[in-house]
Amino acid sequence: MFELFGFEPLETPIIELKETLFGKGGDETNRLIYAFSKGPDDIGLRFDHTVPLARVVAQHLGEITIPYRRYAIGPVFRADKPQKGRYRQFWQCDFDMVGTRSPVADAEVIALSYTTLTRLGFTDQFVTDVFDRRALNGMAQVIGALTKEQSFAVLRGWDKLAKVPREKIGAEVEVAGVDREVFNRYTDELLAIANSSVANDRVIDCLAELFPNNQLATEGFQGLREILRYLAAYGVPEKRVRINPTLARGLDYYTGPIFETVVEEAGVGSVTGGGRFDNLIEDLGGPSIPATGSSFGLERLVEVLRILNIAQPEKTPVQVFVASFDTRSTELVEHAVTIATELRHSGIRTELFMGEGTLGKQLQVADRRGAPYAVFAGPDEMAQKAVVIKNLRTELVNGDKVKMKTANQRLVPRRELAAELRRLIA
Amino acid sequence: MFELFGFEPLETPIIELKETLFGKGGDETNRLIYAFSKGPDDIGLRFDHTVPLARVVAQHLGEITIPYRRYAIGPVFRADKPQKGRYRQFWQCDFDMVGTRSPVADAEVIALSYTTLTRLGFTDQFVTDVFDRRALNGMAQVIGALTKEQSFAVLRGWDKLAKVPREKIGAEVEVAGVDREVFNRYTDELLAIANSSVANDRVIDCLAELFPNNQLATEGFQGLREILRYLAAYGVPEKRVRINPTLARGLDYYTGPIFETVVEEAGVGSVTGGGRFDNLIEDLGGPSIPATGSSFGLERLVEVLRILNIAQPEKTPVQVFVASFDTRSTELVEHAVTIATELRHSGIRTELFMGEGTLGKQLQVADRRGAPYAVFAGPDEMAQKAVVIKNLRTELVNGDKVKMKTANQRLVPRRELAAELRRLIA
Repeated sequence: MFELFGFEPLETPIIELKETLFGKGGDETNRLIYAFSKGPDDIGLRFDHTVPLARVVAQHLGEITIPYRRYAIGPVFRADKPQKGRYRQFWQCDFDMVGTRSPVADAEVIALSYTTLTRLGFTDQFVTDVFDRRALNGMAQVIGALTKEQSFAVLRGWDKLAKVPREKIGAEVEVAGVDREVFNRYTDELLAIANSSVANDRVIDCLAELFPNNQLATEGFQGLREILRYLAAYGVPEKRVRINPTLARGLDYYTGPIFETVVEEAGVGSVTGGGRFDNLIEDLGGPSIPATGSSFGLERLVEVLRILNIAQPEKTPVQVFVASFDTRSTELVEHAVTIATELRHSGIRTELFMGEGTLGKQLQVADRRGAPYAVFAGPDEMAQKAVVIKNLRTELVNGDKVKMKTANQRLVPRRELAAELRRLIA
Repeated sequence: MFELFGFEPLETPIIELKETLFGKGGDETNRLIYAFSKGPDDIGLRFDHTVPLARVVAQHLGEITIPYRRYAIGPVFRADKPQKGRYRQFWQCDFDMVGTRSPVADAEVIALSYTTLTRLGFTDQFVTDVFDRRALNGMAQVIGALTKEQSFAVLRGWDKLAKVPREKIGAEVEVAGVDREVFNRYTDELLAIANSSVANDRVIDCLAELFPNNQLATEGFQGLREILRYLAAYGVPEKRVRINPTLARGLDYYTGPIFETVVEEAGVGSVTGGGRFDNLIEDLGGPSIPATGSSFGLERLVEVLRILNIAQPEKTPVQVFVASFDTRSTELVEHAVTIATELRHSGIRTELFMGEGTLGKQLQVADRRGAPYAVFAGPDEMAQKAVVIKNLRTELVNGDKVKMKTANQRLVPRRELAAELRRLIA
């Protein structure tokens, strides 16, 4: 999907310099970084793919054609408390566009998420929440958050509305120096707008009425309107996107639109998350270059596909299990080797039994492997230049799995073996 | 290839407990481990896939059907001095068989390496060196290495013969308490055997004559003979394998046959390495379960393929670049979005230009991306329900890349665009 949308792969190392990682996500993220020293180097494990991308762009700008689209699929690390759908090592499938402030880029990020989830088999189970950091910061100014810390406190409060009691949020906002009553009054209105089932454009209208005459907020609202307009051109249905004024996201580096896809009925948190990070490349020593992007959380996505029964993880099992008629006989083991080698040459996924054990024990192993066919040849079959094919597939009889009764085992000429097995497997 | 040989994937975390990693590879390896603490945990980054596999088998034995074949493809970490073909983070493609002492398993490890390299396009450029730790330890006993330390000193000495001056090796062996003259006399004979161009079986005969009446050595030689016999059944040509009595390999955990594939003309070190590790699972708290395996070094393999011009890394470039006729016009950008969306739906890898810039600038970007076709539509084309396809492919004229002159640019009806581009790309 990333390549279909014109993104190219760029893999960065798992280890970064500590100074690259720290201070980009905020205090909370700093605490979660696996940081350490090795020899003279202060280093750490990446906690996302975005900060390393920004570092690479800052460092190798001459080798990159801007605008630049890249994707990365690999593990990231956060020393968080493990819980359902949240691991200390998890895979992010990240995609970013570097070099443009255009809202069409933000819309494309949402469109790629939508198209991917749809191709995976999701229909109406998901919605991408969208909001904007400029809008949030402007809104926070309107209710009296004047310093960066006050603004963060208000944004954090709004972001936690679904999980934390209002009493506790109000207390935290007050500690930061924001009038608790003003905060509460605006928050009630905000929740009323967020929970109204009006169209996204109307949500923005209501917000613009509630927070008028603030330049940042107005810019943010305007950006959101443009994104909505482009999303229509991308063919993303209105219902798959929700303007959500309580979405703030945790990472400090976001500067504009932010996105998060949730599958509410699965109950494992968001499956995508991202946003615009126009200052991060400059923070890492590069010129001022805008960028936007998002990532899929691979484990969560797989978990949600499983919970909603949209798809189950698939194995690529062994197709043929070659047993040795007598594992103590070098000749018979050699014969099994030549059979396995021949089948592999003809493209059949083949396991050769290794070790000691009776034919019966070997067929038990074949069975547990889920191999549909086993193959073996004893001295009699060798003399006849033939091989036994045993059908290991099961069928359901009265709810019990039983071995297929038909053609359970038969002799085929040695030289027809590969062709016969290919026919059976097909 | 791993699945063709009946291996199934098992991915383990990049972080392991420090106690799992230390003491498995030897002092040299211990020094290279990225180890650190996070909260109450003493942890480190895996330096290979073998130790984590052994830990998983020891810990989850009840969930595994023995014999068990698994593969793992992913990064491992060693804080080594970086040099050509040697990186601190590198990818190992590892495969292991757990639960059998049979030499047919060791032969299958070599056969899988041979088959994979052959499929990659190698012909006679590579050879897999094979030897045996039991044989080496027995040979070291014969020349007077009685303690584990003395044995290690002798094995390390032999392993370094190609790289380190004999004088230095002799001194190190002497420090360990082994008679230097005896070591030198046997080493000369060993080199003479290793450098003779006799068949592998004959190499083993000569070694058996040089190191007679030692049980370990005899066991090791017998194991090597059996491996050679099975390799013939696997169809591995005699010349692709070399019994090399100076191969010892660095890691402590090997207990039997060891393997290493070298491509001498590429000069970047071995591209595969492995061996039998019958005690490692027990060392990690499990029962005594034998195992053998090997791994490909991915970066080195890619480097060798490039050096020998067998294969070059391939990109999956953008097929069509959609430009916006005027990036300041929301309508024209929207129109470009609908074109890109349609092409992506029909499976064409499409980049949509993002940001600001003239059509000329956008076509330069398309060119640098290597896109063979660009597509755009201005107000006139929109009125005609048509789109311009521009051919960006180059041809060589007198050694210079020049734009294709034929059919450089033409108009096609909007509704025929995807089909026409699919036809052009095919």
